[in-house]
Amino acid sequence: MADPWQECMDYAVALARKAGEIIRGALKEEISVMTKSSPVDLVTETDQKVENFIISLIKEKYPSHSFIGEESVAAGEGSILTANPTWIIDPIDGTTNFVHRFPFVAVSIGFVVNKEIEFGIVYSCVEDKMYTARKGKGAFCNGQKLKVSGQEDITKSLLVTELGSNRDPETIKIILSNMERLLSIPIHGIRAVGTAAVNMCLVATGGADAYYEMGIHCWDMAGAGIIITEAGGVLLDVSGGPFDLMSRRIIAASSQVVGERIARALQIIPLKRDDATN
Amino acid sequence: MADPWQECMDYAVALARKAGEIIRGALKEEISVMTKSSPVDLVTETDQKVENFIISLIKEKYPSHSFIGEESVAAGEGSILTANPTWIIDPIDGTTNFVHRFPFVAVSIGFVVNKEIEFGIVYSCVEDKMYTARKGKGAFCNGQKLKVSGQEDITKSLLVTELGSNRDPETIKIILSNMERLLSIPIHGIRAVGTAAVNMCLVATGGADAYYEMGIHCWDMAGAGIIITEAGGVLLDVSGGPFDLMSRRIIAASSQVVGERIARALQIIPLKRDDATN
Repeated sequence: MADPWQECMDYAVALARKAGEIIRGALKEEISVMTKSSPVDLVTETDQKVENFIISLIKEKYPSHSFIGEESVAAGEGSILTANPTWIIDPIDGTTNFVHRFPFVAVSIGFVVNKEIEFGIVYSCVEDKMYTARKGKGAFCNGQKLKVSGQEDITKSLLVTELGSNRDPETIKIILSNMERLLSIPIHGIRAVGTAAVNMCLVATGGADAYYEMGIHCWDMAGAGIIITEAGGVLLDVSGGPFDLMSRRIIAASSQVVGERIARALQIIPLKRDDATN
Repeated sequence: MADPWQECMDYAVALARKAGEIIRGALKEEISVMTKSSPVDLVTETDQKVENFIISLIKEKYPSHSFIGEESVAAGEGSILTANPTWIIDPIDGTTNFVHRFPFVAVSIGFVVNKEIEFGIVYSCVEDKMYTARKGKGAFCNGQKLKVSGQEDITKSLLVTELGSNRDPETIKIILSNMERLLSIPIHGIRAVGTAAVNMCLVATGGADAYYEMGIHCWDMAGAGIIITEAGGVLLDVSGGPFDLMSRRIIAASSQVVGERIARALQIIPLKRDDATN
């Protein structure tokens, strides 16, 4: 039987590439910046423009599908995940990087059916790296098959995470204290390139051994999540339990052992779920 | 009058490129890892091989010049900076990245005469980005002129730094508490790609507004230091005073104002200087 979603995936790759072109073009112009939840939670006209571009073209072709997009949600649309084929879109993952022209900026598209990710696309457009994964068919970057490191020894691991855009003093304290606990295990180090999607793709390539974060959203994880699992990695909740796309928290690891060890080190930040109805 | 050091600089660029080829080749082979000052201070045969390659070829051509190389110093050679033309070399800046194949690994060469940096080369070899600067002649990446952001507002700034390889609990506490103070100003964010030289070059491109770190060495700063100043940035000590190449501490900023604001936020970590004689 033919793959029912391959056509959607091919379309998503083409759209992500076009979106990346728009973003690269915008990086050459003046960027006007607005803020969302806090003075450091940034958004630009390009975020909105790219999301509209992607969603309008998908809607034209697949009018019955559902959408969860970062900027649509910011504008008041819901983010309840149903069983319907759903496109989960972050037009610019790494908006702060985009604003600063820090060279890691990604278009992220995840496609979810019956609440399972069927395929994911992360286009790191300044680097021109197209990461893709189709369920059961492996993960690739520019056509090259990806494989996680498989590292099981936390003391030999390199982690990626972010300090985030929440400037609540209690949240900052937990984020830094989690880093302290991990560094003290010890681990080899922690890196942060400024986008969840690219951080996760770096785990998929084997370049880092795990990524963890709390406070991100389904659109930061849906595209890269399946790139991790198709590269042989695992997704866990920060509690060590099963990963939940709408929970705003994730550990993406090269092995179950390393993922669980990170979970044991983490103090959990209370967060409102993406699908909370109030 | 002809530039007395241009020939040295051209030679350095050619050597850095060759060294980068060796490193890229080594990334395809198995990497065997040893440790230096701590279980997370890593070194490989490639670090030593690349440093020997660079220094032996320079010595052949400039037998009267002096050398300070990361691996030569680790092997017991001195690191006293004299007025003599001195090549300061880090064969692999980002050894932990190299070990993990995290894609930011640089060859760094700084050339110092009368204790002033005359030129600097940072070759980020996985990205194939050749950063160069000659005193008074500007900074370039792959031939494109670099310019810092010029940002003067710390609350709109993106910083780069590292968590480092010191796992002493007191040092980790100061590093994280410095991040906490900066994040709380607030600033836009903090990134860490795992090499001092590339972090500094990202400031030179305008992609980040400042880099600071304590605990690094002259070979991490000599190449990129002049790339910062030739791109219009400033180098400061973490106290806010004048930068000292042998002090193991640095603020490299897009403006004096942002540099001084960072200095005011930083608690200082006590460190033995690179040129300490005991």
